[in-house]
Amino acid sequence: MADAPIIDCLQYANWSEKIFHQLHDGGVDAVHVTIAYHETFREVVLNLETWNRWFEQYPELIFAGRSGDDVRRARQEGRTAIFFGFQNPSPIEDDIGLIEICHTLGIRFMQLTYNNQSLLATGCYEDDDTGLTRFGKQAVAEMNRVGLVVDMSHSGKRSTLEAIDASSRPIAITHANPHWWHPALRNKCDEVLRALTGAGGMLGFSVYPHHLKDGTACTLSSFCEMVAEAAERYGVEHLGIGTDLCQDQPDKIVEWMRNGRWSKQTDFGEGSAAAPGFPKQPDWFRDNRDFGTIASGLQSAGFSSDDVDAIMGGNWLRFFDQSFKAEAS
Amino acid sequence: MADAPIIDCLQYANWSEKIFHQLHDGGVDAVHVTIAYHETFREVVLNLETWNRWFEQYPELIFAGRSGDDVRRARQEGRTAIFFGFQNPSPIEDDIGLIEICHTLGIRFMQLTYNNQSLLATGCYEDDDTGLTRFGKQAVAEMNRVGLVVDMSHSGKRSTLEAIDASSRPIAITHANPHWWHPALRNKCDEVLRALTGAGGMLGFSVYPHHLKDGTACTLSSFCEMVAEAAERYGVEHLGIGTDLCQDQPDKIVEWMRNGRWSKQTDFGEGSAAAPGFPKQPDWFRDNRDFGTIASGLQSAGFSSDDVDAIMGGNWLRFFDQSFKAEAS
Repeated sequence: MADAPIIDCLQYANWSEKIFHQLHDGGVDAVHVTIAYHETFREVVLNLETWNRWFEQYPELIFAGRSGDDVRRARQEGRTAIFFGFQNPSPIEDDIGLIEICHTLGIRFMQLTYNNQSLLATGCYEDDDTGLTRFGKQAVAEMNRVGLVVDMSHSGKRSTLEAIDASSRPIAITHANPHWWHPALRNKCDEVLRALTGAGGMLGFSVYPHHLKDGTACTLSSFCEMVAEAAERYGVEHLGIGTDLCQDQPDKIVEWMRNGRWSKQTDFGEGSAAAPGFPKQPDWFRDNRDFGTIASGLQSAGFSSDDVDAIMGGNWLRFFDQSFKAEAS
Repeated sequence: MADAPIIDCLQYANWSEKIFHQLHDGGVDAVHVTIAYHETFREVVLNLETWNRWFEQYPELIFAGRSGDDVRRARQEGRTAIFFGFQNPSPIEDDIGLIEICHTLGIRFMQLTYNNQSLLATGCYEDDDTGLTRFGKQAVAEMNRVGLVVDMSHSGKRSTLEAIDASSRPIAITHANPHWWHPALRNKCDEVLRALTGAGGMLGFSVYPHHLKDGTACTLSSFCEMVAEAAERYGVEHLGIGTDLCQDQPDKIVEWMRNGRWSKQTDFGEGSAAAPGFPKQPDWFRDNRDFGTIASGLQSAGFSSDDVDAIMGGNWLRFFDQSFKAEAS
């Protein structure tokens, strides 16, 4: 497996030198890092500035990733390429021109919604999903043009199916699991996963406990058997990892993720009043040093070495190569 | 002269398809385009969005330039590379992190001041020049680090000398003429020009009538003899063109340039109450199709073909190659 990249297609850690070292120690070549939940454009620029300082401070560990070739470069140089994404379209405000601006600034994934209705589509927590809005259809076309990947991890079913259909390029669900394995609101039904992968899209498996069967107590073998079943249903080439790791975050962050500035009442999202904080990670995936454990689990579940390589990063690398450049005009 | 590039290192036209065609017809390979006089960061992003739409609409004529190689590419493909610059540091607001963000967005020149005192330095219209501010010194170092050129065209003498001294990389005065030829407030004294060029910097000669001896009536031979005298004093390798062409702009634009949002009284800048608008161009330089006329004038003034090539674009190209990349860390 030494020649295959490790790519995690979603993390939102409380980043620190310690975690950058753990990325290195875990052999993680690329991470898709969330830099917006509810931020405006200007606030996202402040988040980019914070990352720029880290790139300046820790050049031996991390750098800004823009393309699939940056993953190869990271692997060669023993560093980690950081790719940026938004879990909400709030940073593009009501301005379609900000899509290209954000791509120029290095953004490579954007969710059309984060749980709630957005200007573009409907989130998975709304009662009624009305699909892509007028702005949403324009935004998908513009994202296709510039090479910004449509991510429907937190969207409703109809919106997701319409985005798959509207998009001229394959889209992604970067961090979720199949609903048939664990029927969480955030996990995706078979119909959505078939449509996604049938159109060339990618699913990143989450190890966030709320997305796991039995939560924190989920076993590695249960997780890997689910991946094996998904490979049979959708084809191994459409599967990757998107851990949704929120390492070292204080609980006020999950409150921000769920409530932003939109709610005066506390929304507990996937948690509850009794357990409002971040759930504890399963013991087989605590941080970035545990990707080897997942790889071993996949091998034990019957995957070939090539298939393990594909799931651990090879498939995302192919997708990065296809997705991040502007459409040929 | 067919193999040498033509580069104009300052224009602020009222851009249109007509002007893009004139750039092509004039064989202009690269232009440094002003996109900020008094704009905030968010307003500059809107200006970039406008340019992005033009790049999408007229790909056969223009594209976004980032490096010296883009000038070579423009020349090869018969297009014009557009390089962005600010005549005022207003877009970085009070936030040093915006310098790298703006560089990522393609900004390649930033004046530390536009006539007035700024957060960074003192403009050439203030009574007292106190030199680089605390923020100004930090900003110059950060501009050096990321590859954003310090431009002192509208700065005071002390500020300019201090910027030349503080900058670890050569700086530019993109659009001005020597004060000894025409003693306008905006033209630069011999001491400044010696310091600028002695430190490897570049001077772009302006053909904006207020910067010309005899204004609109200035003759081509007077202009070219001035260039010849400057070449003797400072070395031909430090000289280029920065026309300050403001083609097709309505007079309300020169009012905006002079007054922005800072003045309730009308400041007439280089004009006067009797002649508040844009002055008429000299007949030997009306628009982008007239660079050949300047080149011929330089040859008549005694320059060799190689020197004409250097002044018309070769020197700026060398400077672009040296200046736009991040410092090796």
